Amino acid sequence: MKLKSFFKWSCSQKRFLHLPTALTSSEPHRMTRVLLLTEKPHDATASKSLTLMINNSLISTITSGLHYVLPLATRSLAKLTAIIDQEMETIGCQKVILPTLGHLDLLQVSGKWSEHKEDIFTLNDRHKQALFMAPTHEEMFCSWLSREKLVEKQLPLYLYQVTSKFRDEARPRGGLLRGREFVMKDLYSFDATESDAHKSYDLVCQSYQNIFDRLKLNVIKTKADPGTIGGKHSHEYHLISDAGEDTIYICSQCNHSFSEEYMEKNAARSNHCANCKCDLQAKQSLEVGHAFYLSTRYTEPFKCFYRSRLNTYCLLEMGSYGLGVTRILASCVEILSTNRVIGWPALIAPYQICIIPPKTGSKEDNLGVTHLAEDLARHLNKYTKADVVIDDRTELTIGHRVVDAKCLGIPIIIIAGRKCLESIPLFEFSYLNGSERNMKDLSFLDIMKEVESFVTNC
Amino acid sequence: MKLKSFFKWSCSQKRFLHLPTALTSSEPHRMTRVLLLTEKPHDATASKSLTLMINNSLISTITSGLHYVLPLATRSLAKLTAIIDQEMETIGCQKVILPTLGHLDLLQVSGKWSEHKEDIFTLNDRHKQALFMAPTHEEMFCSWLSREKLVEKQLPLYLYQVTSKFRDEARPRGGLLRGREFVMKDLYSFDATESDAHKSYDLVCQSYQNIFDRLKLNVIKTKADPGTIGGKHSHEYHLISDAGEDTIYICSQCNHSFSEEYMEKNAARSNHCANCKCDLQAKQSLEVGHAFYLSTRYTEPFKCFYRSRLNTYCLLEMGSYGLGVTRILASCVEILSTNRVIGWPALIAPYQICIIPPKTGSKEDNLGVTHLAEDLARHLNKYTKADVVIDDRTELTIGHRVVDAKCLGIPIIIIAGRKCLESIPLFEFSYLNGSERNMKDLSFLDIMKEVESFVTNC
Repeated sequence: MKLKSFFKWSCSQKRFLHLPTALTSSEPHRMTRVLLLTEKPHDATASKSLTLMINNSLISTITSGLHYVLPLATRSLAKLTAIIDQEMETIGCQKVILPTLGHLDLLQVSGKWSEHKEDIFTLNDRHKQALFMAPTHEEMFCSWLSREKLVEKQLPLYLYQVTSKFRDEARPRGGLLRGREFVMKDLYSFDATESDAHKSYDLVCQSYQNIFDRLKLNVIKTKADPGTIGGKHSHEYHLISDAGEDTIYICSQCNHSFSEEYMEKNAARSNHCANCKCDLQAKQSLEVGHAFYLSTRYTEPFKCFYRSRLNTYCLLEMGSYGLGVTRILASCVEILSTNRVIGWPALIAPYQICIIPPKTGSKEDNLGVTHLAEDLARHLNKYTKADVVIDDRTELTIGHRVVDAKCLGIPIIIIAGRKCLESIPLFEFSYLNGSERNMKDLSFLDIMKEVESFVTNC
Repeated sequence: MKLKSFFKWSCSQKRFLHLPTALTSSEPHRMTRVLLLTEKPHDATASKSLTLMINNSLISTITSGLHYVLPLATRSLAKLTAIIDQEMETIGCQKVILPTLGHLDLLQVSGKWSEHKEDIFTLNDRHKQALFMAPTHEEMFCSWLSREKLVEKQLPLYLYQVTSKFRDEARPRGGLLRGREFVMKDLYSFDATESDAHKSYDLVCQSYQNIFDRLKLNVIKTKADPGTIGGKHSHEYHLISDAGEDTIYICSQCNHSFSEEYMEKNAARSNHCANCKCDLQAKQSLEVGHAFYLSTRYTEPFKCFYRSRLNTYCLLEMGSYGLGVTRILASCVEILSTNRVIGWPALIAPYQICIIPPKTGSKEDNLGVTHLAEDLARHLNKYTKADVVIDDRTELTIGHRVVDAKCLGIPIIIIAGRKCLESIPLFEFSYLNGSERNMKDLSFLDIMKEVESFVTNC
């Protein structure tokens, strides 16, 4: 078999999603080396996603709103971050890391402190300086850029980070759905003019749409009220879910949708679409992203100017845009799972392939099928872009391990069973097609082709 | 030119360092879109690395000990993290993300609070619960694993994270050399027996050596005193530097070395090697990593047991291992740079290649050399694993931009100048060979070959 030449990587591969470096391995992973816990949720009222994520060793919760992201979920999080990074790169965003800690007076300058103080963690350092733990970074960006003397040709400037953010939630709930510490992608745009700022806003919104499209999530862009972040207008990104704490109002005719706050402030709660006047339908939802056109809401108090081509100093026009990265992860589990079986967008499942060799001491094991399974795992790991785990807990039956792999939501499960003893060995190839799981018998080489096509298309 | 087949990726590439996903791009980057600032250090006593990192738009400092990692340095940090991830993966470590915030009573259980309280940021949440911001995570790992009922076959268990850590330093200094908030890789090993724990310790130490070898940094593994982290023995990893705050004692005969604390506590400051009794030489150094064999120092107070094969409950044997990721970055700049020109380990320079097209309106520009340079940039970006920036600030002279690229420490600088007008166009190819910069004239195709070999070997 000329696998090497058959599966040589396409030269255009930079367009596909690389596995993040942390997830590449010269050997396939082995389930006996993956941290699997037997913990069960303590709280009978836990949401579906929290229960599933604890039961499947994805997260652990030791105290309210503070979570341990375990190895399997850390893999999914790395993949999700890689997708976001790619889409940010595509529209010219640059990645930075700002401090978590800032001087509390920054929030007094912006006025956020007076509106939101009970939600913000604060502390004093050893010199009795008052600090806060940033929930978002508008103030830190503006106070910094106000002294950096940007010039017009440096605009538009798009800076983002993917870091832990902090919010002293009154009622943390649902595991990663609403934590006190969470991973957020926050992006800030700086433009010369209002019309440029609108272009940036639209560009980022399209980029967000691309991210959710790649995850095959049916996200709803919802007209929102800027609220306490401030600014001129804003949109939220919602996923419909009964576990959601938000309510959005969707027009059955024109598909426009509106957040609850927007309805309260802008309509007389008339339940008619602000766009086409048709009836609105209320839906429970999870907010997974937002976009704010801030105009000079922050750049003005921080005196954040740029030097124009005419050598005058003008206020920067600003936008801010957030994606709740850990929340998106939990939302996927909430929305795509049954009560027992996790569903993932194929791109961010912890592993894409699980290979299940025969039980130790079985006829198949004695006749060499285990070696065949190991060989397949090595080939898939080496010659395709898929990430592979071999479930070598061979003291367990094949059936037991198949159930575990399904519950964990691994898209492709390959069973090396009885049919591997035929003259041309056949594996049972089980794959997710949407939320359906299909099964067919495939040879070694056919599996290689099938996986390559799966990875390219997912 | 059959570039496509010539430069097809090797099937064994998973062994090389992939560019982290955030750094892959379908088009080469352009220097006009990279955030370059004109900030200068405010503090005349700033260390060499801090001055260079501010002057070259790598970091920005707005308040003592809290730093902004700008796009260029974020690239280097992502590459360094990718190397660490690869080496951790190689020895079977699993990546996790633990919370930054923990309940303060955890530090009382371990006793760290009484020894170290002035260095630890603490705060109260809205329910008046006392929390701390973790400088390291021994307590959070032990309190969690104490309820997870690990069984012997799950051991050894190696869990690590690369996250921001917090320490209320009395005297933050040197930018990323000693911040109050910094990125640290912290790894925790859990074993069944003392002899297994020693094997884990040696395995991690070898892995650390591999990381520094790949960075071509001459790290010195130094016998250290476990200090307040506690445990039975420990080593530190030091880089010799006059900017270092530490002193280590190196034996001129047997190359053993010892930390200052170790000397104070274990010898009568005799200045003789504990190994071979020869004379020791004192050197100033930067501590960039450490390893602690903790034994049951933490697992005992947290009652952190595993179930053995004999069905008895035994305390886990623990080790903890840290690498100061942002500190390594700054240390490289401190050690490898002159006062004007940054030196990087080739693997972690912000870009590997800078291409410099002619000045706008020059003869070369008018005769099409700019297009040639753009074409080269696109080919290098598409068909090699190198990351490429084209310095399109073409209002500046070539000379000006060459100086900037050298100061930023970009290993390969390719100038599209006068010789590009010859019948076979030649580029000036300037590359770092150790700390020396060499120059040769190369054709388009020769550059492609040279870069491929550079990327493979660096």
